[in-house]
Amino acid sequence: MNAPSAWTVKPPAPDPAARERARERQNGLTKPRGSLGRLEQLAITLCALQATDRPSVERVAISVFAGDHGVCTEGISAFPQEVTAQMIANFASGGAAISVLANHLGASLDVVNVGTVTPPDHQLPGVRHEMVSAGTANLARQPAMTDDQAVAALRVGDTAAARAAENHGQLFIGGDMGIGNTTAAAALACALLDEDPRNLVGPGTGLDSEGVSHKARVVERALERHGTGREPLSVLASLGGLEIAALTGAILGAASRRIPVLVDGFIVSVAALVAVRQQPALRDWLFFAHRSAEPGHQRVLAALDAQPLLDLGMRLGEGSGAAVAVPLMRLACDLHNDMASFEDAGVSNRS
Amino acid sequence: MNAPSAWTVKPPAPDPAARERARERQNGLTKPRGSLGRLEQLAITLCALQATDRPSVERVAISVFAGDHGVCTEGISAFPQEVTAQMIANFASGGAAISVLANHLGASLDVVNVGTVTPPDHQLPGVRHEMVSAGTANLARQPAMTDDQAVAALRVGDTAAARAAENHGQLFIGGDMGIGNTTAAAALACALLDEDPRNLVGPGTGLDSEGVSHKARVVERALERHGTGREPLSVLASLGGLEIAALTGAILGAASRRIPVLVDGFIVSVAALVAVRQQPALRDWLFFAHRSAEPGHQRVLAALDAQPLLDLGMRLGEGSGAAVAVPLMRLACDLHNDMASFEDAGVSNRS
Repeated sequence: MNAPSAWTVKPPAPDPAARERARERQNGLTKPRGSLGRLEQLAITLCALQATDRPSVERVAISVFAGDHGVCTEGISAFPQEVTAQMIANFASGGAAISVLANHLGASLDVVNVGTVTPPDHQLPGVRHEMVSAGTANLARQPAMTDDQAVAALRVGDTAAARAAENHGQLFIGGDMGIGNTTAAAALACALLDEDPRNLVGPGTGLDSEGVSHKARVVERALERHGTGREPLSVLASLGGLEIAALTGAILGAASRRIPVLVDGFIVSVAALVAVRQQPALRDWLFFAHRSAEPGHQRVLAALDAQPLLDLGMRLGEGSGAAVAVPLMRLACDLHNDMASFEDAGVSNRS
Repeated sequence: MNAPSAWTVKPPAPDPAARERARERQNGLTKPRGSLGRLEQLAITLCALQATDRPSVERVAISVFAGDHGVCTEGISAFPQEVTAQMIANFASGGAAISVLANHLGASLDVVNVGTVTPPDHQLPGVRHEMVSAGTANLARQPAMTDDQAVAALRVGDTAAARAAENHGQLFIGGDMGIGNTTAAAALACALLDEDPRNLVGPGTGLDSEGVSHKARVVERALERHGTGREPLSVLASLGGLEIAALTGAILGAASRRIPVLVDGFIVSVAALVAVRQQPALRDWLFFAHRSAEPGHQRVLAALDAQPLLDLGMRLGEGSGAAVAVPLMRLACDLHNDMASFEDAGVSNRS
């Protein structure tokens, strides 16, 4: 009943007629054909997903999911574990990067505690406490989550997507906060992609090369214990994290409600990889915001056949890289909606 | 008296103390050090240029310079020459890409006709007619501009920069419109960089491979006629364009008035190359917005040691690529100004 594999949320198909009309419109605007580069395809794809002739991403819904990781006891992070809960307070008070970005973009910011080791502070304004457990178990020694916990975390994410839909969100961004989560994400990606940990493990928040080697050995132990080749949501339960599972549920939930998703960096891309393995039709609903400096991201992007919009060396998480890419999507919409056609402007087309 | 080489406008030095304070601030914000990637360096550089602790690019001044090219008679463009003047009308009526972008960004848009073959339409709202001549001469057969014309065009650009300064502009963007101008820009870049035309000539608005080969031969003829190795502003006069000279004057003029410049694609980068060759201290004042799909741009960027912010396959001109990068600079400023420090937020720094 509660097996993660029973989680079936199905994204609908994009609208091919809207896509075709958008392509025609782009070709008639007062510019050499194709000269707006990827902004043209962005607008065309948005038309197909939103089933409209006037795409818009003015209403952006951001949900940041926070969770702690039992694997921290293996000494795999440059920052202490209590930072997860401290950053939740920083999101609430507006001082974190994603808070500043959401404010500038006029985006809604939903902060969800899916499970910290620090007891939740119910005084924090605007933070939802949907604790599944006080952090995960140590994935190097046992499954990170039970099946029930994984399903509960998927549901926390799906509920956030439902809120985005209720608020008429036109674009969904998921963000992550969780000291230790690059270890979990690397383990998860290695298992799904049958990849050597040394190719996917990186410095995270700032390990030195010795720290990275140790982290890779921890991931190796985890993979030996849990094996590979299983059903994606079972792999998520044994090697993921509460916030990663919530992100997977949120991404599937947003797309199933016809809300396109702008995928952030390494952690969110791994959550998206799980989701795409579970529901390949999801891939149509994903835009990729940026190429993270975390080295494992390249491999995950390649597996998803993704070409991110930005490559600025960011590696912060929180959904910050996705937020930074939002203005590109908005400008792509404005150009599509507001430019004049050759005909309307009386401009000669190519000779 | 009117030799272009006498054009000496000197950019001031950035503020090293403001730069150092900005670097310290970035290192104390609630994020792993360096995790905002290039957005951190953007903010730090802006602090040094604007001599401030709170950088801002809210007031963006965009000037688009339009001019025609005598070399069009050689059949080097996919679009007919009258498009230059038609696009001026499209800028004025708000239908061009740069009009839409300026409007979305709340930027001022200054359209300056530096010299079209089509007589200027004085009814167009918001267009400045500062015609130096009715287009340039055919650079494949004679100097594109006389020395007097080149100096007059430099002055048109400098005057636009003066307007930006009067309006308290915090960032200057120059844009180009001129059918035939990728031919002039390629010739200019080849002369300054001592490069083979086949490495710098590209399809512009959309030539096929035969057209590109023909265009390269035209540039080769021009280089044979005018030679290389001369003083940069004399090369500009013989191989440039009225709008390219105006851009060179505007970029130098903005920096000399302490306004940082966000450089657009191929045409503007070549104008910037001329300006940097004339005044190497200018380089500090330049941000590079995007990597154009026009192949010659790579070589020019390398010569300027420039790493653009975006790589979206754009190749439109008008300053459009620079406009698309403005939100990244604004977000970099907001993050710098509004994020909490570890101390203020009570977040533990790395262990």
